[in-house]
Amino acid sequence: MTFTVVAEKKGPSDKRRRIIDAAVSVFSRQGFYTSTVADVAQEADVADGTIYLYFKNKDDLLISIFEECMDIFIESAEEELTKGKDAVEKLRMFIALHLKLVQKNRELAQVIQIELRQSSKFMKEYANEKFFGYLAILEKILSGGIKSGHFSPSADPVILKRAIFGAIDEMALEWVLMKRKRYTMEEAADQLSRLFVEGLEVAK
Amino acid sequence: MTFTVVAEKKGPSDKRRRIIDAAVSVFSRQGFYTSTVADVAQEADVADGTIYLYFKNKDDLLISIFEECMDIFIESAEEELTKGKDAVEKLRMFIALHLKLVQKNRELAQVIQIELRQSSKFMKEYANEKFFGYLAILEKILSGGIKSGHFSPSADPVILKRAIFGAIDEMALEWVLMKRKRYTMEEAADQLSRLFVEGLEVAK
Repeated sequence: MTFTVVAEKKGPSDKRRRIIDAAVSVFSRQGFYTSTVADVAQEADVADGTIYLYFKNKDDLLISIFEECMDIFIESAEEELTKGKDAVEKLRMFIALHLKLVQKNRELAQVIQIELRQSSKFMKEYANEKFFGYLAILEKILSGGIKSGHFSPSADPVILKRAIFGAIDEMALEWVLMKRKRYTMEEAADQLSRLFVEGLEVAK
Repeated sequence: MTFTVVAEKKGPSDKRRRIIDAAVSVFSRQGFYTSTVADVAQEADVADGTIYLYFKNKDDLLISIFEECMDIFIESAEEELTKGKDAVEKLRMFIALHLKLVQKNRELAQVIQIELRQSSKFMKEYANEKFFGYLAILEKILSGGIKSGHFSPSADPVILKRAIFGAIDEMALEWVLMKRKRYTMEEAADQLSRLFVEGLEVAK
């Protein structure tokens, strides 16, 4: 089972789930552009036509992988974050959760970090509501932290939610591309949390 | 003149420079995949064959744009940073320089932020030495700051150089994609510098 995280969610159909799992394996192994719907069908052990009952085309399959993945992340994050005692802890938990999922789901991460970004359709045309949902959680943590007095009032949550995402995302990308892993995602999460919460500067 | 920054550098050939500038315009306007070498030749006002005197193919042209851009950045950064009085100031200058160049060179930023990332060749096969040169400057600032006592000794420059690049890069990407600019690159640079130097947390 490659799509561990998503697989835990009860989907509307086992077959749809099987196709998505197969697509993750095929796209991560062969690359999205050189894969065909027939390759995915073979991997999922369904007829080619079956795929079109659930997905419009190969692009739709790729975007569905992303959307399911974001749904799971957003759901997990919202649940988990209620346990955080303040904004500092919530930010730490958010970063750790994102990177833990990358480490747990390597093939999926490969598809989202590499294959998806190469899709012109995704980068330019897709109205990325799921991603805005992700960013909204970060913004809420930041705004909440400013309101509660934990975070500096000079921080701009609109700018920083995107910057923090960028840093987490780049860690995930480097980690996916690294042949010999020089650090774990736990170490990366710890470094990022300290960077964002405490900053680099040694207090004078 | 679209390729302002690079154009200031004396190239080995005016024609090569003209082709690169033309490629930046064409790729940013039409997208890399739907552009042809003939489109670039027409924009540069040279014969199609002339392009092949300087570049192997369209991919080589795209990668050359990136490499020249990195050369210029690295050169500017190394020169500029000698003026920074300490690691904190050097980090601020590095971030501001990167984002200033994005703001000044929109078409070029479009090509590097969007078109280049969609190139499977670039993402997977290209031995990205120029990018390592960029990261090496960041690492030097971080290590230098730890050594001089300005930055926390618990910071890991190997991890954080990549995270800081990711945050800057994501700001650049969002800014390039934003139709109505909600913030300037100066504001982004200021927010990032505070985030990395001071951190979000209000001192207790």
